Amino acid sequence: MKPVAVDAMGGDKAPAEIVAGARQASDRLDVPVLLFGRAEAIAAVDPGGLEVVACSEVIEMHDDPGVSVRRKKDASVLRAAEAVRDGSASAMVSAGNTGAAMASALLRMGRIRGVHRPAIATPIPVPGSRPTVLLDAGANAECQPGWLVQFAQMGAAYARTRYGLDEPRVGLLSVGEEPTKGTALVKDAHALLADPAWSATSGGRFVGNVEGRDVMTDEVDVVVTDGFTGNVVLKTLEGGMRFVERALLEAMTATEELRAAFEVLWPAVLPLVTDLDPDSYGGAMLLGVDGVCIISHGSSSANAIVNALDVAREMVTADLVGILRAAVSPPLVPSA
Amino acid sequence: MKPVAVDAMGGDKAPAEIVAGARQASDRLDVPVLLFGRAEAIAAVDPGGLEVVACSEVIEMHDDPGVSVRRKKDASVLRAAEAVRDGSASAMVSAGNTGAAMASALLRMGRIRGVHRPAIATPIPVPGSRPTVLLDAGANAECQPGWLVQFAQMGAAYARTRYGLDEPRVGLLSVGEEPTKGTALVKDAHALLADPAWSATSGGRFVGNVEGRDVMTDEVDVVVTDGFTGNVVLKTLEGGMRFVERALLEAMTATEELRAAFEVLWPAVLPLVTDLDPDSYGGAMLLGVDGVCIISHGSSSANAIVNALDVAREMVTADLVGILRAAVSPPLVPSA
Repeated sequence: MKPVAVDAMGGDKAPAEIVAGARQASDRLDVPVLLFGRAEAIAAVDPGGLEVVACSEVIEMHDDPGVSVRRKKDASVLRAAEAVRDGSASAMVSAGNTGAAMASALLRMGRIRGVHRPAIATPIPVPGSRPTVLLDAGANAECQPGWLVQFAQMGAAYARTRYGLDEPRVGLLSVGEEPTKGTALVKDAHALLADPAWSATSGGRFVGNVEGRDVMTDEVDVVVTDGFTGNVVLKTLEGGMRFVERALLEAMTATEELRAAFEVLWPAVLPLVTDLDPDSYGGAMLLGVDGVCIISHGSSSANAIVNALDVAREMVTADLVGILRAAVSPPLVPSA
Repeated sequence: MKPVAVDAMGGDKAPAEIVAGARQASDRLDVPVLLFGRAEAIAAVDPGGLEVVACSEVIEMHDDPGVSVRRKKDASVLRAAEAVRDGSASAMVSAGNTGAAMASALLRMGRIRGVHRPAIATPIPVPGSRPTVLLDAGANAECQPGWLVQFAQMGAAYARTRYGLDEPRVGLLSVGEEPTKGTALVKDAHALLADPAWSATSGGRFVGNVEGRDVMTDEVDVVVTDGFTGNVVLKTLEGGMRFVERALLEAMTATEELRAAFEVLWPAVLPLVTDLDPDSYGGAMLLGVDGVCIISHGSSSANAIVNALDVAREMVTADLVGILRAAVSPPLVPSA
């Protein structure tokens, strides 16, 4: 397998944690890796024997994605996407500016034929069960009904490939179970999804509208929504989980006596905390571009990068892009 | 003060828990109460000395709100709203069908002059701090920018009245801090809110866009959004919290040894669990109708009803409706 192109400069903890994660994935999991970034910065954090492709520019977290991908032609994230297009890499991983990673993948790899809009598919942890795949988690703030149908197709194909599900249950995020509830977008998308024709190519099964409270349950495998709502859901959950975790930890370690009791419980609680940690899931997948593109959380640790590289290899090996191509083709809904 | 009209038939645990809560609020807090519902059903759960207004019909949780408020003229929730309009009650509380409670309040009390659309304002728990007021939490799936400005005005006025804040910080829910992010609705609403003119009558202060992760923090006092996104946020948080709580409790009580340690921690954790319980907050407020209308959670226990009645009395005494009338008048944005 061709190496996975890693944007060594992207992320709050770049390049140190990114490079450390890439080394671990290479050493422990034998994932082939190519690092993209400033040579000195990468050398300073010891890339071991990993090959480095020197890039002179970096797109920072606060940079405007659209502007910077046009101006910074030698940016690490853009060069990583180029490597996938040129066939020198099999996939790309970036924990940097999400918009820039999306724009780089779109500009350099292009879309899979027939795809209206690529979407970000993010695994939402469901401790004790498989994660729920939420898409679009932020690529397209405003969507059309036909795009949501393709999100359903791509999400179902992804859930089959990644989690080995036979017939993923696909829900449409709304504010009630009734098809008459929600926005015009949701009602129109519901009508399209209710016709099982969409699922013939992807193997998904529409289970109707789901609500926010269903996302973290094993009632549904794929949740489809527009990128605005999806991003709000993702960040609301992240914020809420972190808040509850921190508040609980503070309450349970406030005194010596409590701390002693908590130490007994910690080993039992740790797996749950790990399950809820986005670093455990290998990041989000940009579905619909013509290549495997993983966009990891900005706060990614080395461990998150290891998981992302593991998933990247798995999806390359399984030919996720070929599976997506078949899932959305022939286009079942008119391009809008 | 005139009594608070309580829809004794509304809620998953009606009438038993509703009536029990009404009795407690009357006995312990001296809140005057009028119960609306089927005489026999209420008598069967012992209303004590509370006055009962017999109504022959009930709007069930699964009933279509629009249809049922037209057909069931003698429904308890509709009669409760009528009592407020007629001046025989000072406020209404219902834990029943949310759509029916909204429709009843709108039809019978009408809107405050100048209000485009009433909105549901829901307190989101922020343990260790005041709740964040989220609106619209579900009344209007699709909104116009000017409505969001009024939600900001009403939300700020409510936060001042209910939580005694001098200058509530109002955030607009989006997917990034930059005014250029989000949907057309959010961008247009941002432009309107950035002009401080809107806040002159309500005393709020616009702090810009906020994200899902900010809702459960004390970075913001009022979060404004459309009713679709608001409802999804609310239900996502409810589901996520409940899930984490249950998973943690299960993990921490899986063996005898763990259970013993957990018993030491429980008193320290309990206040947090209480803080996160929606029953602690007295329910959501329908802002913009011409009367105090509290819509409690469908799962409301007696305790939730006690809190709702306490809040109802407080808001009547503080003249919330008069304060809202001043906050949205004169209309600063053209009616759309």
